[in-house]
Formats: sequence, structure tokens, C-alpha cells
Amino acid sequence: MVGMVMQMQAVDVPARVPVPAARPFIQTLGVNLKETFFPDDPFRAVAREDGRCRRAAAALRYMFPCLEWLPSYTLGALRSDLIAGVTVASLAVPQGISYAKLADLPPIMGLYSSFVPALVYAVMGSSRDLAVGTMAVGSLLFAAMLGKEAPPAESPDLYLRLAFTATFFAGVFQTGLGVLRLGFVVDFLSHAAIVGFMGGAATVVCMQQLKGLLGLQHFTTSTDAVAVMRAVFSQTHMWRWQSLVLGCCFLIFLLITRFFSKRRPKFFWVSAAAPLASVIVGSVLVYLIHGQNHGIQVIGNLAKGINPASAKSLILSPPHMMVALKTGIITSLLGLAEGIAVGRSFAMAKNNHVDGNKEMIAFGLMNIIGSCTSCYLTAGPFSRSAVNVNAGCRTAMSNAVMAAAVAVTLLFLTPLFHYTPLVVLSAIIVSAMLGIIDFPAAAKLWKVDKVDFCVCLGAYLGVVLGDVEIGLSIAVGISVLRILLFVARPRTTVLGNMPNSTIYRRMDHYTMAQAVPGLLVLHVDSPIYFANASYLRERISRWIDEEEDRIKAAGEESLRCVVLDMGAVGSIDTSGTKLIEGLKRSLDRKSMQIALANPGSEVMKKLDKSKVLLLVGDDWIFQTVAEACDYALLNCKIAGGAAESV
Amino acid sequence: MVGMVMQMQAVDVPARVPVPAARPFIQTLGVNLKETFFPDDPFRAVAREDGRCRRAAAALRYMFPCLEWLPSYTLGALRSDLIAGVTVASLAVPQGISYAKLADLPPIMGLYSSFVPALVYAVMGSSRDLAVGTMAVGSLLFAAMLGKEAPPAESPDLYLRLAFTATFFAGVFQTGLGVLRLGFVVDFLSHAAIVGFMGGAATVVCMQQLKGLLGLQHFTTSTDAVAVMRAVFSQTHMWRWQSLVLGCCFLIFLLITRFFSKRRPKFFWVSAAAPLASVIVGSVLVYLIHGQNHGIQVIGNLAKGINPASAKSLILSPPHMMVALKTGIITSLLGLAEGIAVGRSFAMAKNNHVDGNKEMIAFGLMNIIGSCTSCYLTAGPFSRSAVNVNAGCRTAMSNAVMAAAVAVTLLFLTPLFHYTPLVVLSAIIVSAMLGIIDFPAAAKLWKVDKVDFCVCLGAYLGVVLGDVEIGLSIAVGISVLRILLFVARPRTTVLGNMPNSTIYRRMDHYTMAQAVPGLLVLHVDSPIYFANASYLRERISRWIDEEEDRIKAAGEESLRCVVLDMGAVGSIDTSGTKLIEGLKRSLDRKSMQIALANPGSEVMKKLDKSKVLLLVGDDWIFQTVAEACDYALLNCKIAGGAAESV
Repeated sequence: MVGMVMQMQAVDVPARVPVPAARPFIQTLGVNLKETFFPDDPFRAVAREDGRCRRAAAALRYMFPCLEWLPSYTLGALRSDLIAGVTVASLAVPQGISYAKLADLPPIMGLYSSFVPALVYAVMGSSRDLAVGTMAVGSLLFAAMLGKEAPPAESPDLYLRLAFTATFFAGVFQTGLGVLRLGFVVDFLSHAAIVGFMGGAATVVCMQQLKGLLGLQHFTTSTDAVAVMRAVFSQTHMWRWQSLVLGCCFLIFLLITRFFSKRRPKFFWVSAAAPLASVIVGSVLVYLIHGQNHGIQVIGNLAKGINPASAKSLILSPPHMMVALKTGIITSLLGLAEGIAVGRSFAMAKNNHVDGNKEMIAFGLMNIIGSCTSCYLTAGPFSRSAVNVNAGCRTAMSNAVMAAAVAVTLLFLTPLFHYTPLVVLSAIIVSAMLGIIDFPAAAKLWKVDKVDFCVCLGAYLGVVLGDVEIGLSIAVGISVLRILLFVARPRTTVLGNMPNSTIYRRMDHYTMAQAVPGLLVLHVDSPIYFANASYLRERISRWIDEEEDRIKAAGEESLRCVVLDMGAVGSIDTSGTKLIEGLKRSLDRKSMQIALANPGSEVMKKLDKSKVLLLVGDDWIFQTVAEACDYALLNCKIAGGAAESV
Repeated sequence: MVGMVMQMQAVDVPARVPVPAARPFIQTLGVNLKETFFPDDPFRAVAREDGRCRRAAAALRYMFPCLEWLPSYTLGALRSDLIAGVTVASLAVPQGISYAKLADLPPIMGLYSSFVPALVYAVMGSSRDLAVGTMAVGSLLFAAMLGKEAPPAESPDLYLRLAFTATFFAGVFQTGLGVLRLGFVVDFLSHAAIVGFMGGAATVVCMQQLKGLLGLQHFTTSTDAVAVMRAVFSQTHMWRWQSLVLGCCFLIFLLITRFFSKRRPKFFWVSAAAPLASVIVGSVLVYLIHGQNHGIQVIGNLAKGINPASAKSLILSPPHMMVALKTGIITSLLGLAEGIAVGRSFAMAKNNHVDGNKEMIAFGLMNIIGSCTSCYLTAGPFSRSAVNVNAGCRTAMSNAVMAAAVAVTLLFLTPLFHYTPLVVLSAIIVSAMLGIIDFPAAAKLWKVDKVDFCVCLGAYLGVVLGDVEIGLSIAVGISVLRILLFVARPRTTVLGNMPNSTIYRRMDHYTMAQAVPGLLVLHVDSPIYFANASYLRERISRWIDEEEDRIKAAGEESLRCVVLDMGAVGSIDTSGTKLIEGLKRSLDRKSMQIALANPGSEVMKKLDKSKVLLLVGDDWIFQTVAEACDYALLNCKIAGGAAESV
């Protein structure tokens, strides 16, 4: 220590922390807005070009990502996309019909929803891996939320119109978020919340499929576990063993193919084609044994032809509009959260980039156009996208191929689904849902972060025992509460000097760090503002009290200076500057000094403007903790006036 | 740079960052809970004592703060408290009557509310400066919120019972917050929000007093500026000039005394006694000129005797209970926010300590007991407390003295208020409210922090143009949104090497900091978690892209390593560890390295548990940025294989 002090005397006055030059308010505002809403600087590619034409071309390329890959599209890429598109279509057809049943909508709408939206995404989507389609959780939410307003059994027409309207609002909301660059709204649905929520929704969906698997006619419209179990076990006499046996056979078949494909990724197409195989086998079987006469329900007639227009069905006036609006907003957020997460995780593996705001606009247009062409909510579900990637897709062209394959089905093949038993659709849904319940992810959350696990479990239990909205509110609530609690309770730690260095580190983390006698070095690891200023005041004064108690007990040199390491204090507000002011005044009364080490430019600006800098004194602000300590040891009087002896 | 590299070679392997030893989950939870809920370690004083008796005594002292000062109470302190108590009482009596009128309650309740609660606070309160009484904003809220449910003109009895019930719930809520150590809830009402909100409420109260000043009989129950102005100017024929003249005279008198006392703090008693003087002069005047016959309304009969019991009036069953519950919760929060802020600011000046959670319990008991003894909501209003402090109070005994003086008034002097004109009460309220509108504070907010100013202005306009609840929601909404936005958009900055040192600082703040060729040093100034992980991913990859563009344009040495300064990353969650993992993988693909400098113990623990530490490699984690840079320069291959030449 003494050596360092000597060295400091030679340097005399350590280099000080400059106060950044004041910038005009408008300029600061502009920079802040840009950093907040355009962190990825999307127009860089446009601004880089010279000449008006080339800039316009770059802007078009920005708006329509397909223009980025179309000019260099090769025959090889086309072959890959053809294979991927057809493979995905073979999954999309049975899955689409199943999910439409789950949403209590006409099965044909599942096919419609795999046609138009996929074409839109091929033009607008920035991900090259995503396969577009309806999502199980969204379908479940439609049935649960819209079904309350218009029970599909009683008023199927109103229910259908509400579904289109909710899809429309979902699209408008998604486009709006994208245009206003509010992508970060989705970020507040944490990974843990999504794992728990999706798991819960999958559990609920599985339980609801007991209706189909057991061949029940009457069922509850509630989604919570208790109501469903009561509905199942209150009518044991209605169970149809034929249906159950058939369903279990197909379910086991599907699970085995999935297990097999997971073990040998080369044979991904086995699990991708399994649902279609099940549908074909099931239909043939029912046709041969006249299953519909033995209590096995079938799909029945499906209309031929591609999507009819549905723009006139939208309900744009209260009161029915409100429930559609609410459903649209909630499902659109879920669709975005899943779609963007899926797109990003595949893009990361291939070193591509997915632009969240562009994706939102693409999803939004998909749903707006979809709502006018007899489609309901679509997004980028994981199961299809995984098949798409495994099948070797190269660009969004695979979505166009899938759309073409679905269009062929719509135009020519729909009569073939007449005898498809509903129980096969239930088996397809259950097998897809069992893949969504992600036990390893939950286990990892428990291991790495207990609070995240609580968020996950809360969301799961909320969905399973309450309903989807409760689960979602619990998940978002705990997540936001965690942020607020983190902000309200920042960590303060005591730093010590690492031997033979000018480095100061946390004494509870680095055992070799040594306290400097007469000084208390405190590190604050968060911005200081209204939500934590009074906590920090209490905590810091407790640190000082405890240190004084310890010194008194040990009979050591008394405390002369408190050094605050502000390196991690990213910003400060008026409550924060008041805290520093109050601390300075109360330390003055104890004739102790306060020194600030390494404050950032934001902090310096605020301290300067609020005159706290004047109060603390320019010469008590330092670039590093080491400088602050050395200066303090030299310049602080020991209480009792023994300073001259240093 | 080369010199430093040579030096590094001698040291060979730099000291590494240790992973903290795993602690049992229960222990971590315990420590975290303690830091969250007991940051001030309240039982330290108890634990420090030896022996059961002394511990019990310390615990009693903790629970009843009066036991701390009573044993050493001196005659000198008693004299000071006597003077302060009587002075405050002379303000409390007219102010209490005025505020009760403001709350549409019987005027006598203002006196009741200065008696029992003050005694409770003398025993339980931890502040030595606070003077207890009703608050103007709380009274206004009672009138606005409860008046909707039970208009006091139509059902005065129900209104009274609702007021007691709301007070009771406010007390229960406050006690609950204190016992559960949830004091930080109050912290989310920022200073800026309180300034704006109080200013707005004061404006509204002033406008409402136009009723009394103009001697109007009919008036609107709305609180917004438009409705009040319409009510005033739609009945200009009803204005009473006698009332207006009298009111203006008293108002001018009160304002002049306040101005005088502010200029000469020694004569604080002039403004403290002015309201009582106005009441006396006004009453005598009305009595002499028989003013009640000339359109000047008077208080009328006041019951003699101290507080009657009111516990049986509480309404503890829906539906009326709900509005009382809501009113109680909102007003209790405001009472706490003002009371604790006032207590803390005076305590800071005297170097005393105010325990937020203890204050909550004291306020809560005050209101619970008050609601059973005909009092309504009480807190520690600024005006009374300032008089108390200026009058030289030493302990909470001054509250007991004030209570005694009010009791004497209740027992013997209430008939004297029969002829007190209502217009004097209006003048007293307006003069008090004009002091609450804090223009200098708003101006300072604008200068130091524009967002805080927006919060303040939003709260003000919300209260004045909408209603109190809207103002409060706007203030809390903007404040919380600001926290969330801060969390969602942390700042990342590029660090450079300060000449002739191992210090790295922000290049946009320190102009002399120099970039290290081949390295990109990034500083993240907030915890990394779900709410900002995807933003940070985009922002960091933009930094890297921009740096690569710059290097390509300048023809410099290509980028070899990205150093992340994690010194300010206080914590990390599973989304955060995924970000580091993704960054490492995408840099690997560009054959660049990633190095982490100065991660905290929390971060190390999480990185270790999530296996990201294994992926990054133990030897790419450093204590300081300097070590990371030196090691990276030595050990990173330049893309193109020219590394050996270094």
C-alpha cells in the first residue's frame, strides 16, 4: 500500500473524469430514440448505396426479403426446396385438419390456412427456415376464448365470423408492432414463461383429446384439468372401446416413428410422413369396416376448391368485436413469441439473421390477408419448421411449394378425407403435443435459475388448473415482478484490493482480496433511481454502521472515507442524485469523505446538472477505484486528527 | 502495446476468475430473502444483546420506538415539545376542520382525527419530526371516490360509514405492508410522480374551493378542471360578493404571513398561528355583523366531547365494501409516500434514521384505531410537520402535546366555532394548497431529467384534466415503463485503452482512449436477461458488423477477438447464458474468439451451471479487460494465418 501511495505522490493529481459536453435536447432525444427503436440500424444497407435507383432497389430488398435470394436462386436450391415443401405439406395437411378441429372450426379451414399465408410469407418473411401454419396453442385459445362468446355448437356462423375477426385483429396488432418497432414487447415473454406456458397448453390440449380418443359426444367447454377430468369420468358408460383402441394404436405408431426419427435424424421423413400415413390407413380401415356405424366418428364431406373470400364476414363493431380484439391480441403475441424464437434458433445454427420487426410485419400481413381468405391464425410452429429444416429447405420458397401442394389437395383430393376418423386426428394432436412438453428444458431451468423455474411452473400450473389467460398473466406477472424486484434491490458489495495490483474486486467472491484499512469501498451494481434509491440509502448506511462496529470491536484505524465504485451504475435519475447528496451530507457530519470512482458519462452529466458534482467536489471523482483509494489515504484526515502522521 | 504483451508472456497464465462454491439452495434462498426484505437488518440491535431479559427489552424498544427516547427524556426536551405541540395544535384545529369539510365529512371529525391518531403515533412512530393529521389530497380522494358510491348530500350516514371503512382498510393495508416488509412498494411512486400528482391534486382542491369562496350552494361532484369551471361560470348570478371579499381578504392575509415566515424562519409561528387568527377574526366578524343573514355560510353547531366509538359503523361486506377497499388502498399508499418522504427528509437534516417499515406499521395502527374512534385517514402531512420542526420539537412527544391541546378544544371550546364562516376555511385550504404546487421542483426536473419531467407533467395533467386515479395511473405507468424500457434497452459501448495504462474506458466519453487493433472491447452496462437478451444480440452483432465494415474500408488488421466487459453485468438468467452461447458459436463460425472480462460471482455461477463456461473455455475468462486484451493479442490467430508473425 505504502509503495502505491508514494507512486501517487509523484503523479500528484490523478487524471480526472470529464463531464461530457452538453448536447442539444433534440439531438439527445434523437440518439436515444434511435437506440431504442432502431438498435439494428435497418436502413444501413439502404444508406450505403449510391444513386437513387440503387437506393430504391435496396429499400425494396429491405421490404421484400424474397428479393434478396430470388436473383441468385439456383436449380439446386429449387430441388432442395421442392423436397422440403412436399415433405412439410404431407405433415401440414393432416395437422391443419386436426388443429382446425381443435379450434372448433370446419376442418377445411386448416387446409385454407396452409395455402394463402404460406404464399405471403414466401414473399415477406426474413427467415429461410420457418414453415407457416396454424398453431396448436392458438387454436386452443380460439376455442376457449371465442367459444365463451359464441358457443360453436349453438351459433357456428357467429363463431366462424369471430374467428376471422380475431385473426384480422391479430394481424393488425402484429403489423402495428412491427411498423412501430415495438418488437421488444415480445421479449417480455421470457424463455421460461414460454416453456411453462406451452407445456401447460399442450397438457390441456392432450386432455381435451380424450374426447376424441374415447369417442365422447358431449364434453365440457372449460379447459382446466379438473373440469375435463370430471367430464371424462362422469360418463364412463359412453366410452367407445373401438375408438379408444384405434386411437391408441395410431398414437403408439406416431410416437414410435417420432422416437425413431429423433434417434436417426437422417430418417426425419419417417416421422414427417407418419401423420399422413395414419390418415390414409385410418380412412381405408374405416371405409372397409364401415367404422362410422360402429361409433367411430369421421370428418365427413370437405368442400372442394381453394380459399373463398371472407372479408365480408369480419365483425368490426362492438360488442362482439371486443372479445375478438382481446383474443387477437393475446394469440398474436403468442404467435410472434413462438415464431420469432423458432426462426431465431434455426437461423443461429445456420448463421443467418432474422429481423424481429420484419417478421412481425410478415406475420401481420399473413394474418390480415388470411382473415380475408377464410384462414384463421397462422404463425411459424416449431414442429413444421423442424421438418422443413431437416428436409433441407434453402429459402422461403419451400413455403410456396407447400402452398402449391396444399392447393392441389384442396382442388382434387378433399373427397379422400371423407372417411378419415376423428380419432386419428386426436392421435396426431396428442403426439405433436407430447413433443411440446419440454421436461429437459424445465429441469435445466431448475438447475440454472430457480426463479426462472418458478416462472415456468407458475405458467404451467396457471394454464392447467386455471385457464390460458391466468397462466399467461402469472408468467408475465412473475417475470415483470422479477425485473422490478431486481431494480428495487440492487446488490451492493464490499471491494478489496487484490495483492500486488491496483485491481479491486468483491471480497466475498475473491478470497485473496484485502480490505484497505480506513477505507470502505462499495460497489453498486445497478442504475440508481427512484425505485431503489431509498433501499440503497438504507443498505449503504448499514454497510457503514457494520464497518464502524467491526472497527470498534477490533480496535482498528477508524473509517475515513467511503469510496463508491460507480462503474456499474449505468444511469441515475433525480432520486439517485438526491441519494448521493444525502450520503455526502451525512458522511460530512461524521467527518468522513466520499469518493466516486469511475462514473459513466450519463452519471457525470446528471451529477453536474443537479449541482451534486459541486457539492462532492471535482477532486473526489476518480477514473478508477485504485486512484480513489490512494488519494483518499493521502488526503483524508483520520478522525481524531492523526492524519499528519501518514 | 508490445511492452505489455512481453510482460504478459513472463507471467504466462493470468490469474483466473474463480467459480464460487455451490451453496445449498435453501441457504441461497435465505440470504436472498434477507437482502430483499430485511436490507436494514432490523434485529441487529436485538441480536447484539446478551441474556434473555436484555433481548426482550431490545425487542420492545424495536417495536415501540417511544421506549428509545422516553428513558432519557429531559425537562428541556419537554419544554421544546410543549412549545412545538401547542404551536402545531393552533394550526391543526382550523386545518382539521377545513380538511374535513373538503372530504365532505362533519367538521368535528377533523378534530377527532388530530387526537387519537396523534397519541398512537407518539408511541409507535420512528420519526421525531412528523406531526400527525389529516391530509388534503387524502380528503379530496375520499370525497371524489366515496362520493360516487354514496353522495354525501343524499345519504350522509352511508357516506360516513364508508369513510370509516376506507380508513380501516387503509390501516390494514399499511400495517400489512409494514409487517410483510414490502416497503419498496412505496418506492415505485417516484419523486417526480409525487411532485406532479400533489401539484395536480392541489390545483383541483383550489378550484373546488371556488364553491366556498363564491358562496355557491350547488356544485359539481366531479374533480376535473373542465367540469369545475363549467359549474362556476354557469351560475354567475349566484356569486355572493360578501363571501368573495371576505375570502380574498383572509387569503391575502394568510399568503402574506406565509411569505413573511418563509423569508424569516425565526418567525415561523406567524404563519403557523395565522389560520387560527383568521378563524377567530372571521368568527367574531360574522357574529358582530350577523353575516349568516347576508349569505355567509357558517359551520354551525359542533358536538362537545372527545371521540365517540365508531367500530360498529364499519361495513365489512360487499358491495359497499369494495369501493371503500379501493379508496383505502389508494389513499393509504399516498399517505405512506408523503409521510415517509417527509419523515426521511427531516430526519436526514438532523442525521436521524426513519425506518420505512416501522413507519408503515405506525401509520397503519393509527388508521385502524382511528377508524374505530370516529377518525378518518391520517398521515404525516408536510405543512404540519414543517411547523413542528420549526417550532423545535425534540421527540414524538410533541404529537402527544398536540393531542392534549386538541382534546381540550374538543371538551370545552367547540361552541366557539359556531360562527366560523366556511369561506375562512376555504381560504385556509387554498393557502395551504398553493404551497404544495412546487414549481421550482418541476423546473429542476426539466433541467436534470426530461423523462422525470414527463412523469411529473403526466401526473399533473392526468389529475387536473381527468381524475385522481387517472393521474396516479399515468405517473406509475410512465415510471414503470421507464424501468422496463431501461431494462429492455441497456447501453453497450466500445472501450478503448487509456494511454500508458492498463485502464480501458468508454471511447465516446474519454477522447484519449485508443482502440486496440484487431480487438473489439464491448461494455454491457446492465444485467443480461430475457427482457434484453435479444436486443443485446442484435446490438452486439451490429457493433461487430460495423467494426468489420470500418476495418475493411480502412484496410486495417482484421478483427480477431471480441472482449466483453461484464463488470456491470450484475446478474444473468437462462436467456442471458443462451446469448453468450449464441455469440460464442457465431464468432466461432467467423473464426474469431470471445473473451469475458471481470464477470461477477453470480454470472460465473450461472455460466458454470449452464455449461456455457465449458464452451467458452476457462482460459478465456479474465479478471480485467487489460488481461483479456493482452492474452487475446498473443493467442488469437489472425484470420488468414498470419498469427505466427506476432
